[in-house]
Amino acid sequence: MDVLFSDMADDALFEFLHMEIVAHVYKEHATRDDIDKERVTCISTLEAMGFRVGQGLIERFTKDCPTFKDDLDIMKFLCKDFWSTIFKKQIDNLRTNHQGTYVLQDNKFALLTQFSSGKQYLEEAPKYLAFSCGLIRGALSNLGLESVVTAEVSLMPSCKFMPFI
Amino acid sequence: MDVLFSDMADDALFEFLHMEIVAHVYKEHATRDDIDKERVTCISTLEAMGFRVGQGLIERFTKDCPTFKDDLDIMKFLCKDFWSTIFKKQIDNLRTNHQGTYVLQDNKFALLTQFSSGKQYLEEAPKYLAFSCGLIRGALSNLGLESVVTAEVSLMPSCKFMPFI
Repeated sequence: MDVLFSDMADDALFEFLHMEIVAHVYKEHATRDDIDKERVTCISTLEAMGFRVGQGLIERFTKDCPTFKDDLDIMKFLCKDFWSTIFKKQIDNLRTNHQGTYVLQDNKFALLTQFSSGKQYLEEAPKYLAFSCGLIRGALSNLGLESVVTAEVSLMPSCKFMPFI
Repeated sequence: MDVLFSDMADDALFEFLHMEIVAHVYKEHATRDDIDKERVTCISTLEAMGFRVGQGLIERFTKDCPTFKDDLDIMKFLCKDFWSTIFKKQIDNLRTNHQGTYVLQDNKFALLTQFSSGKQYLEEAPKYLAFSCGLIRGALSNLGLESVVTAEVSLMPSCKFMPFI
């Protein structure tokens, strides 16, 4: 029972914490007037938190790792080791145009699995992706790659993260 | 390398996220006037977040568990399974007066290990314990025990959590 409890709870701890963070950041802005402006602020706040967590994780864990031979090598590391550690599964598909654009597709993104695929949830999706965009940007930044990371959901709980270096 | 990376990063993900939450909650209050009042508000905010996370974790993971035979049995479960899952080690010492007061001592509490034992850090300690007090209260609440949970640090990074039922 120990092992099972522990395995399930590892995922859940992060998921619940993430929900709390999103809820808290949005709640503290809920009373203000300019809703569209506040939406941007909340997304930035969550993205910045993700950025710092991504930096911290990579900093601590690539100390003893081999150096990477190129950008694609870094991206593969993110899709495999980094993603598995945080989200308990690897990225399902990695594509690139070899000009700095990458598409990381997760067919069952852990932070979206609790939502159904209704349209109202699709509109809410960006706030559950911002932290993770920051995670990727922070990790890349600490590996020497400055990037802009966007995300897109077409059908829940599948989504794409698109770092542009 | 995969396994090592994953093991270390599990701890770190929670630790970094927790730091971000504490920093964020305090930062949003930093500009206000009445510092002592705000300190109480921040502690409550963090405690409430911990409470909900603790409730969620217990709710998800005790579905298939045997029922507990008494309060002490619940407390032992918290000290062992629950604590290990979140903090990667068990509580080192559990005491009770058999009248509803429990003392859970962690000799190396994960969320305090990054601080040294200087006096200035000791003063800061309560803000790093509030979330975890909430975790315990939330877990106990979902197991049918309403409680008040306080915490105390005498020598970093050792601390005591004291649920009173």
